[in-house]
Amino acid sequence: MLRLSTNQPDFERQFEKLVSGRREAEADVSAIVEQTIRDVRARGDVALLELTERFDGFSLSEQGWQISAEECKAAYQALAPELRDALKLAAQRITAYHKAQLPKDRDYRDKEGVRLGARWSAVDAAGVYVPGGRAAYPSSVLMNAIPAKVAGVERLVMVTPTPKGEINPTVMAAAHLAGVDEIWRLGGAQAIAALAYGTDRIAPVDVITGPGNAWVAEAKRQLYGVVGIDMVAGPSEIVVVADGKNKPEWIAADLLSQAEHDPTSQSILFTDDADFAEKVAAEVDAQLAQLATAKVASESWQTNGAIVVVDKLETAMPLVNRLAAEHLELAVDDKRAEKLFDLVRHAGSVFLGRMTPEAIGDYVAGPNHVLPTGRRARFSSGLSVLDFMKRTSFIALDKKALKAIGPAALALAEAEGLPAHAESVRKRL
Amino acid sequence: MLRLSTNQPDFERQFEKLVSGRREAEADVSAIVEQTIRDVRARGDVALLELTERFDGFSLSEQGWQISAEECKAAYQALAPELRDALKLAAQRITAYHKAQLPKDRDYRDKEGVRLGARWSAVDAAGVYVPGGRAAYPSSVLMNAIPAKVAGVERLVMVTPTPKGEINPTVMAAAHLAGVDEIWRLGGAQAIAALAYGTDRIAPVDVITGPGNAWVAEAKRQLYGVVGIDMVAGPSEIVVVADGKNKPEWIAADLLSQAEHDPTSQSILFTDDADFAEKVAAEVDAQLAQLATAKVASESWQTNGAIVVVDKLETAMPLVNRLAAEHLELAVDDKRAEKLFDLVRHAGSVFLGRMTPEAIGDYVAGPNHVLPTGRRARFSSGLSVLDFMKRTSFIALDKKALKAIGPAALALAEAEGLPAHAESVRKRL
Repeated sequence: MLRLSTNQPDFERQFEKLVSGRREAEADVSAIVEQTIRDVRARGDVALLELTERFDGFSLSEQGWQISAEECKAAYQALAPELRDALKLAAQRITAYHKAQLPKDRDYRDKEGVRLGARWSAVDAAGVYVPGGRAAYPSSVLMNAIPAKVAGVERLVMVTPTPKGEINPTVMAAAHLAGVDEIWRLGGAQAIAALAYGTDRIAPVDVITGPGNAWVAEAKRQLYGVVGIDMVAGPSEIVVVADGKNKPEWIAADLLSQAEHDPTSQSILFTDDADFAEKVAAEVDAQLAQLATAKVASESWQTNGAIVVVDKLETAMPLVNRLAAEHLELAVDDKRAEKLFDLVRHAGSVFLGRMTPEAIGDYVAGPNHVLPTGRRARFSSGLSVLDFMKRTSFIALDKKALKAIGPAALALAEAEGLPAHAESVRKRL
Repeated sequence: MLRLSTNQPDFERQFEKLVSGRREAEADVSAIVEQTIRDVRARGDVALLELTERFDGFSLSEQGWQISAEECKAAYQALAPELRDALKLAAQRITAYHKAQLPKDRDYRDKEGVRLGARWSAVDAAGVYVPGGRAAYPSSVLMNAIPAKVAGVERLVMVTPTPKGEINPTVMAAAHLAGVDEIWRLGGAQAIAALAYGTDRIAPVDVITGPGNAWVAEAKRQLYGVVGIDMVAGPSEIVVVADGKNKPEWIAADLLSQAEHDPTSQSILFTDDADFAEKVAAEVDAQLAQLATAKVASESWQTNGAIVVVDKLETAMPLVNRLAAEHLELAVDDKRAEKLFDLVRHAGSVFLGRMTPEAIGDYVAGPNHVLPTGRRARFSSGLSVLDFMKRTSFIALDKKALKAIGPAALALAEAEGLPAHAESVRKRL
């Protein structure tokens, strides 16, 4: 864990290292992924069979290619009631938040009599990738699938690797709750390629979202343009801005809740109270001693964690903006949180006040937990219904409107050396 | 030019070829572009100097790296008054349309007492690529730069190759009008790399938009994630749906206005009147005989053009949706245009009625002319202020709200095997 103070002489150099340090593995998977995509495109289902046998260790033709709606429903019904209610509450709140996100169509006539507008519509089909293994999170199913359904996507396809045929029942339950229409037992770059191009068995989709390993991420990157994708995702991160009036154990738990995701995760605390900083550091160590995920969390905290002591929290905000973190907690009194929030320019999601731990946003608050990482909050946003929709603009002129603005179009077309453009206007004038 | 009729026995096969035919050159530029990006990242301005000397045939250190605001203003003032007024009208109308596009922030408290919201903000800096040569269009400067400025981007940077040091004065005038803040005489993949990573002279930007050749497009694709980019763009295209009551010469001009852009452009007519179809075909040939851009337009029309005769325009619409064209004209009576528009699922921009030639949308209507091509209207939208903005979600709980939804978060965190997540909630409950 890195300790920094804005008063130390080499602060700027050290902080810049923190900002520009890449935690993402630059695994050279691009050539392998390219090969996999070409293979699936050429050989379709045969390639999927072989690759699944090789990487997931089971036969699709024996175990079945799909997981049925009935199996998902049964998994949902078999959940412990407390967990089922929790999942249901999460789904309801995510649905409500994303419904309010639906964009409005426009249709108006301006003073020149030109009718203008824009109409939003959902894509026909979307695919959601759900990882197997450690990162098989039902919450992630809800966060990807619900915005698609709220957007109005008619065919929502999930792909998920089922190593040796096994699938997480809570993931199946979440798929049932979110209204997923098809589930295929496929993982890796081959699953992304199958969704993008389609095979004999699998109809192609228009948009693919969802987290995955380096191969999945690279496949999405390579197929961007063939389909729409959500933002390239990197390791998770949290920045906590806290004054000395917080309970150190709360803030320590917040930092660890990010660290336990993965050794590449990052947790950074900004505080104006050096004593408090040390108390939090001690508390992190104390909680690590008892944490079931201590191995991962400890590696993350040691390698990527940082505590930055500043003179004043307000002066920390430009530094916070440079980090453009995925998650930002402003753990101060409510009024002050508001003022600090006014100084935030770049962040994926902000958690205001002392009673809003980031974990609430991961599960039940309502906003999406798929958020830009690796400083991408400078230019990108969390997943939303917009990722599953597209906008068609429209224009309608009558004779009078064409007379008003047509001559200008004609002049510009001629200046650009495009005479047929000019003619299409001139003939109608 | 391909003639099809829905009544011919092999129609589906022929039409599917039209839908899936790729007009985009699959030039293998990826390795070269990767090399260029690495070079600019490593050697910065020195690499830019060398590459510009090699590809654009002039020395940046002799001719100057930038084009000044004064030069652009002078170019604007030197325009012929008619052209200046046309450019001004275009800028005003594009500004008005895009202002109405600005998204609204959200901030509300739900029935559990949870405060939720989303706040939109502009990216700090954006870059616009403007090609040199044939495709150096002032309208393209306006269509890329104005949405950025309307979004609130403070630093708007333009890069444009100036072969042998020459730049199109109308492009400079448009840059002045649109409020571009910096212009660099740079082109190709090296210009994109410089914008994405920055060099000693050039500060990096957050988003890069604008059309370019295969090298520019590939550089944007490779740097997606380091910066935000607009959609990968392919050759331009128009679909015209017209009944027999149109003037054949108007429709012919519309088809040619797309064909004259590039030999890879595509123009397709759907009509329910076989006689009308032949009249349009004859009129296209007649107009080609007189057109200054006949060489390009004729090659495009011959290679990629098509006329599809259908029984009824309504039955053409599912076919039109499969093409998901960049531009779609519905050249029928106003009321019928409305009905056909209701059947449109996928299109970049739609032009309603007989008096709305597509060229109006290229220049002065107001909506953006940067639109999805190559069937990407299935999942993507035209350029808008949203491409230069990002959304930060926020969440604020008080004790009561945490009590209402905290236990569900706790249950889900435990089900996902993330105990520190659970602890961060439990300690506050």
